[in-house]
This record gives sequence, structure tokens and C-alpha cells, in this order.
Amino acid sequence: MSDAPIRDAEKERLEELYEAFDAANLSPLWTQRAGLMPQTPQPDAVPMLWPWSTLYPLAARAGELVPVGRGGERRAIALANPGLSGTAYATPTLWCAIQYLGPREEAPAHRHTQTAFRFVVEGEGVWTNVEGDPVAMTRGDLLLTPGMHFHEHHNTTDHAMAWIDGLDIPLVRQLDAGFFEFGPDRLSTRQTPAVSRNERLWGHPGLAPLGMSDSGARARSSPLMAYRWAHTDAALAAQLELADAGYPGVAGPGHAAVRFTNPATGGDCLSTIRCEMHRLQAGASTVTSRVAGSAVWQVFSGTGQVSVGAERYEVGTGDLFAVPSWAPLRIESADGLDAFRFSDDPVFEALGLARKEIS
Amino acid sequence: MSDAPIRDAEKERLEELYEAFDAANLSPLWTQRAGLMPQTPQPDAVPMLWPWSTLYPLAARAGELVPVGRGGERRAIALANPGLSGTAYATPTLWCAIQYLGPREEAPAHRHTQTAFRFVVEGEGVWTNVEGDPVAMTRGDLLLTPGMHFHEHHNTTDHAMAWIDGLDIPLVRQLDAGFFEFGPDRLSTRQTPAVSRNERLWGHPGLAPLGMSDSGARARSSPLMAYRWAHTDAALAAQLELADAGYPGVAGPGHAAVRFTNPATGGDCLSTIRCEMHRLQAGASTVTSRVAGSAVWQVFSGTGQVSVGAERYEVGTGDLFAVPSWAPLRIESADGLDAFRFSDDPVFEALGLARKEIS
Amino acid sequence: MSDAPIRDAEKERLEELYEAFDAANLSPLWTQRAGLMPQTPQPDAVPMLWPWSTLYPLAARAGELVPVGRGGERRAIALANPGLSGTAYATPTLWCAIQYLGPREEAPAHRHTQTAFRFVVEGEGVWTNVEGDPVAMTRGDLLLTPGMHFHEHHNTTDHAMAWIDGLDIPLVRQLDAGFFEFGPDRLSTRQTPAVSRNERLWGHPGLAPLGMSDSGARARSSPLMAYRWAHTDAALAAQLELADAGYPGVAGPGHAAVRFTNPATGGDCLSTIRCEMHRLQAGASTVTSRVAGSAVWQVFSGTGQVSVGAERYEVGTGDLFAVPSWAPLRIESADGLDAFRFSDDPVFEALGLARKEIS
Amino acid sequence: MSDAPIRDAEKERLEELYEAFDAANLSPLWTQRAGLMPQTPQPDAVPMLWPWSTLYPLAARAGELVPVGRGGERRAIALANPGLSGTAYATPTLWCAIQYLGPREEAPAHRHTQTAFRFVVEGEGVWTNVEGDPVAMTRGDLLLTPGMHFHEHHNTTDHAMAWIDGLDIPLVRQLDAGFFEFGPDRLSTRQTPAVSRNERLWGHPGLAPLGMSDSGARARSSPLMAYRWAHTDAALAAQLELADAGYPGVAGPGHAAVRFTNPATGGDCLSTIRCEMHRLQAGASTVTSRVAGSAVWQVFSGTGQVSVGAERYEVGTGDLFAVPSWAPLRIESADGLDAFRFSDDPVFEALGLARKEIS
Repeated sequence: MSDAPIRDAEKERLEELYEAFDAANLSPLWTQRAGLMPQTPQPDAVPMLWPWSTLYPLAARAGELVPVGRGGERRAIALANPGLSGTAYATPTLWCAIQYLGPREEAPAHRHTQTAFRFVVEGEGVWTNVEGDPVAMTRGDLLLTPGMHFHEHHNTTDHAMAWIDGLDIPLVRQLDAGFFEFGPDRLSTRQTPAVSRNERLWGHPGLAPLGMSDSGARARSSPLMAYRWAHTDAALAAQLELADAGYPGVAGPGHAAVRFTNPATGGDCLSTIRCEMHRLQAGASTVTSRVAGSAVWQVFSGTGQVSVGAERYEVGTGDLFAVPSWAPLRIESADGLDAFRFSDDPVFEALGLARKEIS
Repeated sequence: MSDAPIRDAEKERLEELYEAFDAANLSPLWTQRAGLMPQTPQPDAVPMLWPWSTLYPLAARAGELVPVGRGGERRAIALANPGLSGTAYATPTLWCAIQYLGPREEAPAHRHTQTAFRFVVEGEGVWTNVEGDPVAMTRGDLLLTPGMHFHEHHNTTDHAMAWIDGLDIPLVRQLDAGFFEFGPDRLSTRQTPAVSRNERLWGHPGLAPLGMSDSGARARSSPLMAYRWAHTDAALAAQLELADAGYPGVAGPGHAAVRFTNPATGGDCLSTIRCEMHRLQAGASTVTSRVAGSAVWQVFSGTGQVSVGAERYEVGTGDLFAVPSWAPLRIESADGLDAFRFSDDPVFEALGLARKEIS
Repeated sequence: MSDAPIRDAEKERLEELYEAFDAANLSPLWTQRAGLMPQTPQPDAVPMLWPWSTLYPLAARAGELVPVGRGGERRAIALANPGLSGTAYATPTLWCAIQYLGPREEAPAHRHTQTAFRFVVEGEGVWTNVEGDPVAMTRGDLLLTPGMHFHEHHNTTDHAMAWIDGLDIPLVRQLDAGFFEFGPDRLSTRQTPAVSRNERLWGHPGLAPLGMSDSGARARSSPLMAYRWAHTDAALAAQLELADAGYPGVAGPGHAAVRFTNPATGGDCLSTIRCEMHRLQAGASTVTSRVAGSAVWQVFSGTGQVSVGAERYEVGTGDLFAVPSWAPLRIESADGLDAFRFSDDPVFEALGLARKEIS
Repeated sequence: MSDAPIRDAEKERLEELYEAFDAANLSPLWTQRAGLMPQTPQPDAVPMLWPWSTLYPLAARAGELVPVGRGGERRAIALANPGLSGTAYATPTLWCAIQYLGPREEAPAHRHTQTAFRFVVEGEGVWTNVEGDPVAMTRGDLLLTPGMHFHEHHNTTDHAMAWIDGLDIPLVRQLDAGFFEFGPDRLSTRQTPAVSRNERLWGHPGLAPLGMSDSGARARSSPLMAYRWAHTDAALAAQLELADAGYPGVAGPGHAAVRFTNPATGGDCLSTIRCEMHRLQAGASTVTSRVAGSAVWQVFSGTGQVSVGAERYEVGTGDLFAVPSWAPLRIESADGLDAFRFSDDPVFEALGLARKEIS
């Protein structure tokens, strides 16, 4: 005698059960546990390189064909990770785009819960007005527009300018946490000071304006919104000089690095995005490490070789690459390299999910 | 003369540009800004009710047909929000399932970064061993298994038992933050004490064991892992009695509520999930409110009417419903109602994204 | 030839200089550096024992001779450390007194920045109204009156009752930080509930009233103001039982201890005073340890031998002793001992001055 | 009939009781409550002015007569508040001295729990080595030596130099919290760089060295230990310029002020002492305000009129004055004034005792 009929009957009952699950908007764990809860992160996002030599010309073509205006809001072209198909996300939490503003163009005011920064790899001549405070954008600068701060851009010159925008759009979209408001159509100001008001109040090392200290200055959002290249460069140079003299300070041998911080708290400059600048001396390399959480890097100057997981890239000025969660990363440079990094580390730390491994 | 040819040429050049974007793994913001950054949250998740009268029988049928064991790990049947098609998620951040353990069955040990709790709407006789500490599961209890704590379940009786599991699986999956480990195949202990060791150390109001206070007791993860119904019931009753006597304490008229907290910090009992128990007196209702962030509720006893956005549900014991981000919620009860709520509020608060509106 | 005249001339010039310092309200460091900045703390306060058998009868005599009333405010008799002559301080930061309230007596309402608690070593029948919330006082209870909370005491019985008061009067006096206000002359309430309202809202393990959570509940001052002996006793007993079964939890072998905490923060129950209860099993002893900061202990039950520095005391129920900063302390008990401790530890921790040494 | 005999008998019994209190090291509250717990702070410390024209010549005379060396450690002459007789304290918590170092002199290394700073009102040529890091001292600089950091001073020039030292000696002495250690007798380094290593790592606005961020950089003690006048001056000037242009930032009309902060936390630069620099434009004045807590001010440049309680001082460069707790303070200047302030505000904030009143 065979028990095949019994097995068939069981199989049939199981199929009926799964159909009943479907009908009742239910889904069993046991058939998908490994996918839902893998032993280590299994990102859909993949390592990816976007060369500046591709990006910039496409942005310039968009500058000829696509006007900037209300609705679309910004001429920003986002890095679309091919592993995250159907999205315009660089990683599951980070959005990154090249934004291009033609001669005399303006991008109108808006504000949103999404946290944003600009990093300038080349050019100058655009001012971002943040809550009416005009902030000059020049090569090497990091400029913040924290959540719910009205901001608008205007190009004061006869040449175009491009930079990268970084935001937590994917995270906020996934959480359904986003609020967005249009601002006035007219620019709040056409002033073009070299130094913004927020810098004049908060851009002195270790000094806080007493008159601002009771009014939420220690809040989550950094009151300093422009980090100038001259300072960043000096800080990186000093670390390497101190290392040469035998003193601590560098992140690793031949590897200087700074984190951009909120001077009112000492914490990250943005609530959901960490920003850093790294410098490798000629002949130096980072350790190979991997972290829970994703990041995007942009080479600021110099050249190097990057390994992300099994991928290997030759990189130069302006090139952008994405590092998915838990992918081992190593950067080396024969001739020296400066690179900007931004990541979702603050999210992982705030939620108790941070993890790092150096191999 | 017509400028149609020019327009056609422009259109063609634009199409070429968009194709070039695609080829370069780029995506323009201006065509999708409204979807990426809506003016208020536009959740894919929808309001949804899962009646206990549907859930429990299906779980029981699964109990007959599907064994519990290594790999699938748990006989847990998840609430699959129809707006989040292709997933087994109740909301974009929260996973919720009914778990069913037959007579004398065991679910083997594992641990993971995902944060978990159990809430018991009926039954008893199962013990969850958390890091070897056996925790009894009885009606009305909230039991925690914080991230990276080994846990296993075993049914000591001749009858089946079911309860709900809540986890942050969707959030951790989206972040690519998950690590998972199998534990030993044998149960760590078959002890069945009425009170677990963690309760004996930490379950006294306002008292912390001195010997544990230096060893990470103030860490993110609650050292108390069982919240018993007798305490919860007494706390809710006291609020309403005080309100009747004219004193503050209730969440609203006829509406008592408690938050389950980490006694070592006073914060949420779990790092990514808030847990609360609510009680409506007969004839009472909550205010209509909406919050940025999503939640799942389970009726613990009594009956009521629930409005979530445009949906309206009649609910009774065991019924579960999902509340998407920013959906207005109102609960009323003619005869009185107790309901358990869990949400991603701690995530929103940690990231500076919390927002609430009472209408 | 002698240089004596020169030395004399120098000495004279030096004396003139020191006189000039005096005249100008100046004082040289070099003559007093060792006293101002000793290599380890050199307290003026000395170890001291105040036997209950002395204290209580004197308090009773005061009960016959001295009325309680406005101005003097309380029939409280303070422990005056003989090393701190001219003061009524137990240690440089802590004030401790036996307070005695005769049959039907009342102590009128006042409030002050000084932080206070009561600990009851014997008796019952007095209620302390804290901001109008009547708190029963019974043997073994710790009752708080945080800074700037109006409080008044009334004895509802025909027998006298005594307890100890602990305050940070010396600290606040030294800092010139004290503010004091008289309250109404009439009792705010004559209700005598067994359980106060603050306990009904906050006295459930791991549960916080949702309706109070936005209104400063996480503030410095504990919303729970009564810690009952039944809970304290059970927590201590559980630690020793767990130790007997091989599990962690005790402060040391045969030594159980709990800290009284603010359930809204997990921190100390008072901002400037730490409160703890210790239990030594028969035959057990504490380690010998010393801490930067001072403490006062009261034996609650049992007997023991106490070493404070070079002093050695036989102690029994009600006996109080002061432990100056950095004095080595050891307690042992042949028959078992429960003892209450309060200290300025939170001040030292808040200011980064905490230090501990176990020998 | 008279009841005088009865009264006499009572009086006698009371006297006996008070004698019994004394004999038992006890002290009644009711006879001294008002002194122990005044309605508002009643400082023993008094407002006091120490003119620089008196201080400096006396320090110079000490320079001729008193050698600097081990034991006395420093040629520091402290402000002795006449209200605090028998002490060398400027206020109950703050010690302040003029330190004088002759040509080529050295003050040997030591470290202590007491927190210290130097502020330079004139001169240059001395380096303070802090844990071997040589820190130049020049006019207008604030230099820190946080608790338990070895420090030593050496004058590299042929002229003398003087500055003020500020420490929390009285607070630490009162708490019995002080530990002190002698360091090596030989200078750790004779290097005289213009910029110290701590400045090179931490003296860039909003930038933290990544390599130091895990190693306690966010600890209580500021990693930046030199605040240079050029930055302070620029920050003050910017506030007034912004105010002239209609923007916020100043502390009050014509009144700019900065707080010196720990860049790793945004909090006070020292755990127990707040440091600030204030600037009054010509014709401006501060509000009249009083705070719980005491402060010492030194005029850095310019002239002004100061009211502290009932006292009124004409002040100029170098003059120091003490402000006791809760004394109303007002400063005005016809010609403009810069003044340095240090206070025990962080202690009051940490202990929940801060209070301020503006009249």
C-alpha cells in the first residue's frame, strides 16, 4: 500500500491553507524567514560607480532642455542604484543628485522634513538662501539645509554651476514621514555676501553666541550651515603633520578624516546623515572595513582605486560611488586623494543598529 | 509658419536625454518630485482590519499541517497589508503575526538584531526562554525579546496556545541592518517558574538592583522583559478612578493609557517599537488624532468602533487593525474597551521626525 | 661677615608683602596650597555614630517641651558632625535629623529648593501632604519631597511618631542656592488614603501614564514619591534567592542592595541625594570600599559591626552613622542586617568628580 | 498667683534639653531654620572689587621675594572675599588668583581634580604644557587645564608675565572631592609653537577629527584647550554688526557675548565653571539681572560702571570683581568695554538649582 494519496491530500490541504492566507491578507513566516531575516544584510542595492565625466555632460544637456521651476523645483538628476529598480535612490536610505543651475537661473523656495546638504566639487557663483540667510557656494564647501528650513538657489553669474545634493528622501519615503511646502516665488534676498550670517554667529571654534543659547540652539538641527573648504583642508593637513611628528589624530596611517558636526551639540551636522571628508596621502590606503548602513562617496581631488565588495573602480575628481550595507570597502591612492563621504550612520546609531567590522 | 517641427525636435532631444539618463543609471527629480516628496505622507500601506475570528482558525489549521522547526523557525502568520503588495508587512516599519504553538511543541532558539515582543490576548502554558531565563506567557502580558537576545518557546501543556508577535522586520530590512543567528537545538531550560528572573530583579516599582547598575543596565535594551496584566490593569483602573475624583492622570476623558517603559532609562521598552495599553470607559472615545508614523492595534477585551481615515470597523476581542502614517484615528466604545497599541514612534522621535495633530 | 641682616631685611619685606596682601583682600597660594588642594580628600567631617537609643528619647523630650509651628517649622533635631563645628551638618553636603510629631500634631506647609526625603524606621500614623497629595508614612517606607514641592505633615493618631529627614541643606547653603516659601497655615487635606495619588499613577513596574508623559514627567524630579517597604523587602529577598540559585543580581556575596530611582528617567530618585537599601545575610559583609563623597546610614533592622576609617561601631535598629569622603567603610553582620544609605553621589557624578576604590 | 515658677521650670528643662543635644552631637532645626534655609540666598560672600593697579604691583613684589617651586607650586595670589573670612575664596565656589612668572621661571608639573583655566589680560611669552602639549599664552586667550591633566608653565622671555587663574577649589574643598598629584620636576617639553596640538585637531569650526571620536572625545573634558583672542574678538564684532543690520545674535542691545564651549559636546568648556566674554558698545549697558550662583568678572579693555547689589564700581582694564549669588548686577559703559566672566553656572544647571531674574 502507498501513502501517496495521503500525501496528496495533505498537499492539497496545505495549498488550500495558503490560499486562505492570501484571501485573508496573511502571509506565513516559515516560507520566507530567510529572506526577511537574513544572517547578514543582503542589500538589494549594489555597489555602483557614477563617473563625473558622464554625469556632468548629461546635467549640462538637461540645462539646455529642461527649465527650472515650480513643481519640478530643482534641475537635479539622481543616482539610481540599479539594484533598487524603479526608484531613484542611491542606497535604501540616501538620495544623491547632481544639481545644475544655468547662468542667472533661480530655483524657487521650498521646505520639507527631508534633511539636505550640498557639496561643491567645482565652480562657484551660486548662493543658497536658507531661511533668508544667503550662503555662498564655492569649491570644497559643505552647505546644510536642515529639515523644514526654507531654501532657494540663485546663480549670480553668466556661467553654469553644478554641485551634488544629498538627502534622506528614501528613508523618509519608506517611513511615510515627509511633509513638503512651497515657499514664495520671489527670492527672499539677492544679497551675495562671502560669509553667511549663520557662519558669523556660529563659525568660530569653541564659541557659542550667548544670545542664541536659550533659543533652541542645542536643538537637533545645526545652527552652523556652511563648512568652508579652507577649514576642512587645514584640519586634514594638521592631522597628517601631527602624525608625521609622532602624535595621534589621524584615522589611520596616511589617512586623515574629519566629521562635520553641529557645534551646539558636538553630534552629527544633520539628524539622519553623517558627513565626512577623508584624505589619503600618496601611497596610503584605508583599512578594509564594513559597516551596517550605506554610504555614498565623491572624490574631491586626486585619484585612487576603490574596492566595494567584489567591485573595483578607478576613480578621479567628481566620481561618485555607492557602498551598500555591510559591503567591505577599501580605498587606496598612489598619488593622494581627497574624498567626501555621507552615510546613514546617525540613523543606525540612534536606533541601536550600528555595527562595524575591520578585516 | 508653425514651430511644431522645433517642438518635435526638442521633444526628440528630451527623449534622447531621458534615455541617456537611463543608460547611465540616473533619474531626474523634476518628473517625480511630487511622488518622492509629497506635501503630506502618502502611504502605500492602507488601513486594514484582521478579525481574530479569521486569524485564529487559520492559525489552528496551520498547526495541524505545518510543523515548527529549524529554518522556518516559527509557526507565525503575518498580517500582510494589501497596500504593500509582495510583502508580509503590516506597515512599512512593523511586522505583526499570530504565532501558534501546539501541545508540547517547541520553537527553537535563535537571535537577531530585529526587536521583538509578544502580546497574549488569550491562553497560557507557553514559556519563552530569553537568554535562558524562562518567562511565563499569560493573558494580558507583554513579553520582550530585545535585539540579539536568544529566545525559544515551548508549550508545556496539552492544548495549543496562540499570541501575537510584533517586530521591526520591515524597518530593519529596509535599512539592511539585520543579523540573524541560530541557537542550540535543545531547549536551554524546561523550568516553568511563574515569575522570571528579570522580573525578580527589575519588576519592583522605582527600584533598581545596585549590583546590576554598572553593567549596562542603563543600556538601550530594557532589563525588564515581562509586563504582567495585573499591573497594567491596576494602572489603568487607577487613572480612571483618579479622574472620577477630579485628579489628573488620564490620557483624555474616559480614556486611560499606559506606556511600557525601560525601568533603567524611563524610555520606551524597545528601541524601535513603542508599546501601550489603552482603556476606554463605556461611552467614551479617544480624540481624533493623526501622527507621522504607523501603528498596529489589537483589541484585548470589549467592543468598539474604529475610524481609520475613511474606514470604519466594528471591533472585538483579538481583532487587529493597522493605522498608516498620518491617517486620522478615532476609537469609541459603548460598552468599554481595552486595546493594545504598538508603533514606530521611537524611530520618529530618535530621528527628529515626530509630528502629531489633534482635530 | 654674616648675611643675617640681609635675611632679616628680606623677612621684613616679606612680612610687609603679606600685610599688603591682607590689606588688599588677597591671599597667597604658596603658604596654603597643601590645605586647599590635598593629595586625597581631608574632610573636616569625622566618622560618627548617633545611637537611636539616645536620639529617640531626646526627640520625645523635645516633643514635650517644644511646640511645632510656623517659623521653626519642624521639630527636627539634626545630627551635628563634631568635625564641622558650629554647624548642624551630618556631612559637608547632607543634613539629617530625627523629626518627631506628637499625637494629633501638624507641621505647617512650606517649600524650598532643598531636596528632602523621609525614611521611617518605626511607627505609623502620619501623612505627608505633598502638593496636596496625602502620602502615608509607615515602617520601611521612603517618602520624597522634591525641591519646590509644598509639603506638610500631620499625625492622625493619639501616639507620637518619629522618622528621619534627609536634605541637601549644607550643599545648598554653601552654594547660596536656597529659596524658601511658607505655605498656607491650614492643612491642604485631611484625607488619609493608604496609597497616594502619585503611587497610583507611577507605582507600577515599567508602566508610565501616557497622559502625564508630555508634561515634564521626564523632568529631574521623580513623579513617584513613595517607595513602600513591601516592594523594597521583596526586591532584596529576590536578589539573595537568585544568588543562592547561582544567578547574578546581588551587590556582593550575601549582600543585596537596591537603588531608589525616578521611574521617568531611571536615574536617582532625587537630583542631589542617592538613596539605597542594603541587606546583609547572616554572616555576610560588604567589601571594604571608599568613595569620593559622603554618606549617612541608618540601620533598619538587625545588628552589625561597622568600620569607618579607624572607627568601629556596634550598631542596631535605628542607629545612624556618618561616612566622610574617602573614608574606608566595611559592614559585617553575624545575624543579618538591613540598612538604609543616603549620599551625595549624584552631585559627584553630575560634576565629574566621582571616584571609588575597593580594597 | 503667678505662673512664673512654672515658666522658670520649663525654661530650665529646655536648657537641659539643649545641653543634652550638645552632648549628643545634635542640633535643633527650629532655632536656626531661617539661617539654614533663608527665603532667598543670603551669601556670606560680599560684592568686592580688586583693582588691577593694586594686584599687579603686589604680584611683582612677590616675584622678587618669593621663589616658585615644588610644594607651594605656583606664585599665585588669590582674591580673598572679605565675607568669607579665613579663606582665600573669591566666592563660595570659585578661586581666582593673579599668577606671576618672572623671566625664565618655571612652575613645575602637577595635576588635580580641580578644574582650572588661565585668562590673559596682558603680556605673552609663557607656555603652559598640558599633558605635554605646549600652549602659548597671549593677550585675550582663554587656556584650559581640565581636571587631572598634568600642567606646567614656563616663561621663555626676559620679562615677567602675569595672568589670572580660575579654579573650583572652594567647591571641591567643600565637597571633599580633591585629589592632587605632583608631576616630574623637569619640564616635559621646551617647544614653543604658536599653535598647540589640541588646537590643530579641534580648533576648526564644526569639524571633529574622526580618529579621535571614539576615544572619549565626547567626554566631559573639552579636547580644545586654547581659545584665541582673534576668534573671540571676531565673534563679538560679528554679533554687533549683525545687530546693526537688523539681525538677531546679540545678548542684548549693544551687548555681544560668547560662551566658551567644548566642541565635542556643545556644553560648557569646563565641567564646573562657565566662561564667557562680553562686549558692551559705547553707551550700552547690560540688563539688571540676578542669578542663583556666583561669578567673577575681569575687565579686559575699556572702562565702565558696575553695580553689584548696593555697590558701585568704576572699572578699567584688569580690574576684577566678585558677584555673589542672587546679587543684582548691571554693567554700563560710556566708551565701550570688553569683560571676561566666569561662574559656577554649570554646577547649578547640573544639580537643577539654576534660577534667573531680570528686573
